[in-house]
Amino acid sequence: MTGHADSGRCESPLLGNRSLAPISPQHPGWAERREPRRPVAVLGGGDFARSLAGRLLTAGHPVVVGSRLPSAAAALFPPQVDVTTREGAAGGAARLVLVAVPRDHFNTLVPLAEALRGKVVVDVSNRDRRGDPGPSNAHVLADILPEARVVKAFNTLSAWSLQHGPRDASRHVHVCSDCMEAKAEVMQLARTLGFTPVDMGSLLSAHELEEMPLRLFPEWRMPVLLSLGLATGVYIYAFLRDVIHPFIVKQRNEFYRIPVELVNKTLPVVALMLLSLVYLPGVLAAVQQLRYRTKRRRFAPWLDSWLHARKQLGLLSFFFAALHAIYTLALPLRRSYRYGLLNEAVHMVHKRIDTTWNDEIVWRMEIYISLGIMALGLLVLLAITSLPSVSAALNWREFTFIQSQLGCVALTISTLHALTFGWRRAFEPQRYHFYMPPLFVLALPLPIGTILGRLVLQLPCLQRRLQRIRRGWEDDRHMQNIQDYNELTSIL
Amino acid sequence: MTGHADSGRCESPLLGNRSLAPISPQHPGWAERREPRRPVAVLGGGDFARSLAGRLLTAGHPVVVGSRLPSAAAALFPPQVDVTTREGAAGGAARLVLVAVPRDHFNTLVPLAEALRGKVVVDVSNRDRRGDPGPSNAHVLADILPEARVVKAFNTLSAWSLQHGPRDASRHVHVCSDCMEAKAEVMQLARTLGFTPVDMGSLLSAHELEEMPLRLFPEWRMPVLLSLGLATGVYIYAFLRDVIHPFIVKQRNEFYRIPVELVNKTLPVVALMLLSLVYLPGVLAAVQQLRYRTKRRRFAPWLDSWLHARKQLGLLSFFFAALHAIYTLALPLRRSYRYGLLNEAVHMVHKRIDTTWNDEIVWRMEIYISLGIMALGLLVLLAITSLPSVSAALNWREFTFIQSQLGCVALTISTLHALTFGWRRAFEPQRYHFYMPPLFVLALPLPIGTILGRLVLQLPCLQRRLQRIRRGWEDDRHMQNIQDYNELTSIL
Amino acid sequence: MTGHADSGRCESPLLGNRSLAPISPQHPGWAERREPRRPVAVLGGGDFARSLAGRLLTAGHPVVVGSRLPSAAAALFPPQVDVTTREGAAGGAARLVLVAVPRDHFNTLVPLAEALRGKVVVDVSNRDRRGDPGPSNAHVLADILPEARVVKAFNTLSAWSLQHGPRDASRHVHVCSDCMEAKAEVMQLARTLGFTPVDMGSLLSAHELEEMPLRLFPEWRMPVLLSLGLATGVYIYAFLRDVIHPFIVKQRNEFYRIPVELVNKTLPVVALMLLSLVYLPGVLAAVQQLRYRTKRRRFAPWLDSWLHARKQLGLLSFFFAALHAIYTLALPLRRSYRYGLLNEAVHMVHKRIDTTWNDEIVWRMEIYISLGIMALGLLVLLAITSLPSVSAALNWREFTFIQSQLGCVALTISTLHALTFGWRRAFEPQRYHFYMPPLFVLALPLPIGTILGRLVLQLPCLQRRLQRIRRGWEDDRHMQNIQDYNELTSIL
Repeated sequence: MTGHADSGRCESPLLGNRSLAPISPQHPGWAERREPRRPVAVLGGGDFARSLAGRLLTAGHPVVVGSRLPSAAAALFPPQVDVTTREGAAGGAARLVLVAVPRDHFNTLVPLAEALRGKVVVDVSNRDRRGDPGPSNAHVLADILPEARVVKAFNTLSAWSLQHGPRDASRHVHVCSDCMEAKAEVMQLARTLGFTPVDMGSLLSAHELEEMPLRLFPEWRMPVLLSLGLATGVYIYAFLRDVIHPFIVKQRNEFYRIPVELVNKTLPVVALMLLSLVYLPGVLAAVQQLRYRTKRRRFAPWLDSWLHARKQLGLLSFFFAALHAIYTLALPLRRSYRYGLLNEAVHMVHKRIDTTWNDEIVWRMEIYISLGIMALGLLVLLAITSLPSVSAALNWREFTFIQSQLGCVALTISTLHALTFGWRRAFEPQRYHFYMPPLFVLALPLPIGTILGRLVLQLPCLQRRLQRIRRGWEDDRHMQNIQDYNELTSIL
Repeated sequence: MTGHADSGRCESPLLGNRSLAPISPQHPGWAERREPRRPVAVLGGGDFARSLAGRLLTAGHPVVVGSRLPSAAAALFPPQVDVTTREGAAGGAARLVLVAVPRDHFNTLVPLAEALRGKVVVDVSNRDRRGDPGPSNAHVLADILPEARVVKAFNTLSAWSLQHGPRDASRHVHVCSDCMEAKAEVMQLARTLGFTPVDMGSLLSAHELEEMPLRLFPEWRMPVLLSLGLATGVYIYAFLRDVIHPFIVKQRNEFYRIPVELVNKTLPVVALMLLSLVYLPGVLAAVQQLRYRTKRRRFAPWLDSWLHARKQLGLLSFFFAALHAIYTLALPLRRSYRYGLLNEAVHMVHKRIDTTWNDEIVWRMEIYISLGIMALGLLVLLAITSLPSVSAALNWREFTFIQSQLGCVALTISTLHALTFGWRRAFEPQRYHFYMPPLFVLALPLPIGTILGRLVLQLPCLQRRLQRIRRGWEDDRHMQNIQDYNELTSIL
Repeated sequence: MTGHADSGRCESPLLGNRSLAPISPQHPGWAERREPRRPVAVLGGGDFARSLAGRLLTAGHPVVVGSRLPSAAAALFPPQVDVTTREGAAGGAARLVLVAVPRDHFNTLVPLAEALRGKVVVDVSNRDRRGDPGPSNAHVLADILPEARVVKAFNTLSAWSLQHGPRDASRHVHVCSDCMEAKAEVMQLARTLGFTPVDMGSLLSAHELEEMPLRLFPEWRMPVLLSLGLATGVYIYAFLRDVIHPFIVKQRNEFYRIPVELVNKTLPVVALMLLSLVYLPGVLAAVQQLRYRTKRRRFAPWLDSWLHARKQLGLLSFFFAALHAIYTLALPLRRSYRYGLLNEAVHMVHKRIDTTWNDEIVWRMEIYISLGIMALGLLVLLAITSLPSVSAALNWREFTFIQSQLGCVALTISTLHALTFGWRRAFEPQRYHFYMPPLFVLALPLPIGTILGRLVLQLPCLQRRLQRIRRGWEDDRHMQNIQDYNELTSIL
C-alpha cells in the first residue's frame, strides 16, 4: 500500500477511472487501492442529474446530490450516492458543483450563492427553442451566483449518451468559462468520464453552446429545398411532355412511365443543374473582384451564403447522379423493356427484316454511357473527399485540387454526357411536344454557361489580373503565393 | 546561438522533435541548436524495446537501454543508444523508464525497486488471451515496484506502427495512472513521438487497456452470426422451394439458379428482417416503459444488448440490401436471361402472337423497382451518417433524426417494395410448393409488425404518456425537453 | 460585476471567445462582462495579416498591427484594429507577436530584435517550392531574432480558412517551438481561434511544417502513375486484339467497341493486377526474412516504399473494380446489345431453331457473375476500413484482420472470378489472334503467383520459422505475441 500512499502524494484533484465495468470481485484489493477522491456535487433530481450521478460513480467519483426533496429523491439514485439538501450539497466538501436545474428554476438557487462562493459551478441546462435572444442560461446563472466560477458544459450531451457512454453521437463535451482554472478542471472531469473536452473559450460562447443541441441541419435547409423544388418542377415538365402529350395527341397510354422513366429523366437534370450551381458562384465572385478591381469588397450576402452552400449542393448533386445511375441500370429489368424487345423481334420477323443496325445510334449510346460512368466516378471521388475525416487529412492545396480542378472536369464530362444524349435531337422540330423542348435542352444552359465562364477567367490576361487583385499588397507577394493559389482555386 | 541559450531557459522536461527525417547534412547547425534532453530509459531487448528506442531517437531523446545481457543486446540497437545493465539504466539520470518486459518476467524487476523509487515507470506489456481475470499487468508491476509511479501506456500500439510512425491504424496512445503528473509526462512523451494521447483515468483502466489489442470486433459477433444464420436458413428454404420442388414434381432442372437467383432471393429477405430488428427493440422498450409506468426500471439484459446492437444490425442490413441491388442489376447479364428472351421471341412467332403486353405486370415491376431504389438511397444515407467522423459532426438531434425518422421511412419503403414484389401472389395456392409459402411471405411479418408497433406508439394518448414517463420528475421538465426528445427518438 | 472581478482573479493569459457572431446588441452587458485582454500584435499588411487580425478580433482579442506604412495599411484593417509602426507594435504591450512577413523580407525585422526580446514570436510564413534545402524560415527568423522565443504555427492554414473559420479543410494548426511555454501559449491561442492545435515538437519540425501546404498527394503519385500506365498498355493490347484483328482479318468493323467494351476489358485486368500488387510485397518481405534468417536486416528501398504504397494500390484497385462493375451492369443498356439480341432472335426463326440453351455457358456466367459481386462486396469492406475515421476506431488486430485476411479472400475470389470468365478459352488456339492470348491470360499470373506464395508461407514449418524470426529474442516471447501477430499479418 505504501506504493499507493506514495503515488497518492502527487496532487490529483480528480483521479478518474474510465473503465465502465464496475469493480468486479475478481480483482481483489482494487477497492482499497483507490485513495479517496474529492466528491462531486450534483444539484437537481431529474433525468440528467441521475445520468450525471451514475456516470460519475462509474468513473469512481463520490457523488453528493442536492435535492429540494432529499427523501423523495433518494429513491431515484443508486445507494452509493449521498442524497442531501441543496444547501448541504452546495456547502459540502465538493469543489465541483454540477447544476442540473432548468433555467426557469434558477431563482431557487439564489440562497446558495454564499455556499457556492469560489466553487466551480457547471451549468448543464438547455433551452426550449432556437434563436432565443437575451443572455445565455450560463450568464443568468453567473448573475445569480456572482462569487461562483461558472462553467458551461455537458449540455450538448443527452441523458442517453451520458448513461451509455459516448457512442455513435459526438463524444465531444464543449466547455466554456471566463475562468481558465475552472474550465481546466471541468475539462479534466469530462476526460475522466470518457468524453473529449473541447475548449470553446470564454463564457460568451455559452449562447452558442446552448444553440448547438437545437440545430437540425441548418446548412442543408436551403440546398435541400432548392433541389426538391427543382426536382418537382422538372418532374411535372417531363410528365406533361412525355405522358400527357402522347395521351392527348396520339391517345397513347404511357402512364406506366411515371414510377421509373420520369423519375430517371428528372434526376440527371437536377444533378447537372446542382453541380453547375457549385461552380457558378465562384465565377460570379471572380467577376465581381475583376469589376471592382479589389478583393476587399464584401460579396453580396446572397453570393456569400451561396459560396458557403457549395459543399451541400455538390453532395446533393452526387446523390441525384448516383440515383440516376441506379435507375438507368435498372431499366432493362422492367417488364415493359422486355415486352418492347419481344414485340420488336416479332415485328422484324413479320416485316421480313433480317438484321437491324444503326451505326450512329450505336456510337451515340456507347459514348453516352461511357461518359456518364466517368462523370459518376469523379463525383464519387469528390464525395469521398468531402467526408470530414478525409478532408481533414488533406492540406488545403490537395483539398482544392480535388474539389475545384477535378470537380470542373466532372462538370465538363457530365455536360458532354448530356450533349451526347441529346445529340441532334435538340434540332428536330418533332421533339418539341406542345412546343416544350426536350428536358436535356433545359438542363444544358446552366452548366455550359458556368464552363464558359471559367474558361474565360482562365484567359492569361484576366487570370493575371485576378492573381494581382487577390494578392493584395505588393509587400508580401511571396508569402501569399500559396494562400492566393488556395483562394483562387477555392473560389474558381 | 545565444537565442537558443535563451529559449533554452524556458523549462521543457521533454523537448520533442517529431520530424521523422534524420537530421540531414543540408541543415547546418541543427545539431548544436538542440540543447541536451534528459534521457529516457528502456528496460528489455525485444522487438518492442527496439521499436521504442528507435522512435525515441528519431524524436530526439537520448535513450538508455537496460538489458540483462548488455553485450548481446548492444548489437541489436542503433549505435546512438547507450546499452547498459538494467540496474544502470534504472538507476541512471532517466526520470522516465519504459518497461518492455513480459509479465512473466516481472519478478526479475524486483531488485530494481529501490533504483526506480519515485520514477515514472511505464508498463507497455500485453496479455496472451482475453478475459484473463486477476489484476492487470500494471497492477502487478505496481505491487513489485511500490515506490515507483506506474503508468500504463503504449501497449495498444504495435512494434510495426511504432517503427513506421502512426499510419492507418489508430494513432491513439491510451494512458492511465494513479499519478496525474506521471500520466501528464507520459502523455507529453506520446505527443512528441507523434501520437495522440488519450487519458483513460486511473490505473484501474489498465485492465481495459490490456484487453484492447486483443479485441476482434466483439460488438459485431452476435449481429454477424445472426445474419449468417438467417441467410443460411433462407437460402436452404429457397433451394428446396425453387430447385428441388420443380425437379421432383416437374423433373425440371433448375439447378443453374443456385449461384445467382437463390442468392438474390436470400439477400433481400435477410436485409428486410435485419432492418426491422433495428427498430423492433425500441418498440419493445417503449412497451415495457408504458407497462411499468416508469423509465427507471432496467431493461432485460437481452433487450439492452439488442438495443446496443442496432447500429451493427443496421449496417449489415444495408450491406445485404446493397448486394441485393447489384445482384438484381446483374440479372440481365446472365446467359440464361438471354436464352429466355430469345426462346420467348421465337415462341411468339410460332404461336402467331403479334404483340405481348400485360399492364398489371408492367405497373407492378415499375413501382417495385422504383421503391427498391428509393429504399436503397435512404439506407445509404443511414450508412454514411454511421461513419464515425460524420456522426461525430452531428448533434444528437440530427443524428437521431437521420437514424430514427429516416430509418423508419426506409423500413416502410422497403416493406412496400416487398409487398409490390409479392403483389397478389401470396394468395395464389399454386405458389405454395410443398405448402411452402413464397419467401416474401416469410419476410413480411417482422417489418409489418414493427411498423404497426411504432404507429400505435405514435397515438397521441400513448405518446403523451411516454413523454411523461420519460420526462421523469415534474421538477425539471423544461431542462429535459431536449434530452427527452432525444431519448424518445433514439429509442423509437 | 464583482462576480466577474472574481472570475477575473483566476489568471487567464488568453481569454478566448470562439463564438464567431459579433457581440450582438440583444445581449446587454456582455461587453463589460469581458475583462480587458492583453493585445496580440501582427506584423505585416498582407492578406494573411488581415485574416489573422480579423480572426483575432472575432475571438475577442485586441489587435495591434505593425506596418511599414501604417497610414496606407490602416485603410485595409477593420477600425477596431490599432495600426501602427512595426516598432510600435513590436515594442508594445503585446506578448504574442505574429510575424506575417514573407521570408525574403525577414531582414527588415532585424531592427526589431531588441523590441522582441523574450516575446513569443510566431512565424506564419511559407515557402514557394518544395524540397527547398537549407534551414527553415522559422530557423532563419530565430537567427535574426536571437532573444525572441520563436514558434512556428498557422502556416498550414490558408487566408481563406482563417477568414471563414475552420471548414471542410483541416482544422488542425501545427505548432512547433523549442520553448514549451511559448508553444503552449500559441496552442492556447489557436484553440481560442477555434482550431485544434497539434504539438509538433521542437523547432526542428518547422521544415516539415513548411513543406506541408506544398504537398500534393506525394504518396499517391507512384501508384496512380503505375495504374494509368498499366491501363494504357492493356487498353492498347485489347484494341489491337479485338478491333484491329477482326478489321484486318475478317474486314469486320468493331470500332464501336472502343468507348465501352474495351474500357470494360481494361478495368478488371488493372484492378486484379493492382490488388495482387498489394499482397505481393508482403510475400517478398517474408521471403527475405526467411532467407537472411533475421528481421533486423533493412528491406531494399524499393521493397520498403512498395510496402508503404499498399494502401493506395488497394484503393486504386477498388476504384477500377467498381468502375468495372458499373460498366458491366451498363452493357445491356447499349443499343448494340439490343440489336444483337433482335438479330439473333430473327436468325433463330429463319434457321428454324425453336429453343436455344447451353448449360455450360449458363453455369459459367452464373458462377462468374456471383463471384464478381462477392469480390466487389469484400473490396468495399476493405475500402471502408481504409477511411481514416474508421481505421482509427479499430485496434491493430481488427485492422489487419480486415486488410490482410479479408483482403486475401477478396484477391482469391477475384482470381476465381477471372478464371471462370476465362474458362477453357485459354486453351482454344482460335482465341490467339495475332498469337496474342486473351487478356485474362495476361491478368492471371500475378495474382495466382501471389496467392501461391502466401499459401507456401502458410506451411507450418515456414510459418513457425517466420514466427521465430519475427519474435526476435527468446527473452520476451510472451510480450511480443500480439505485436508479432500484428506484424506478421500486416506484412503477409
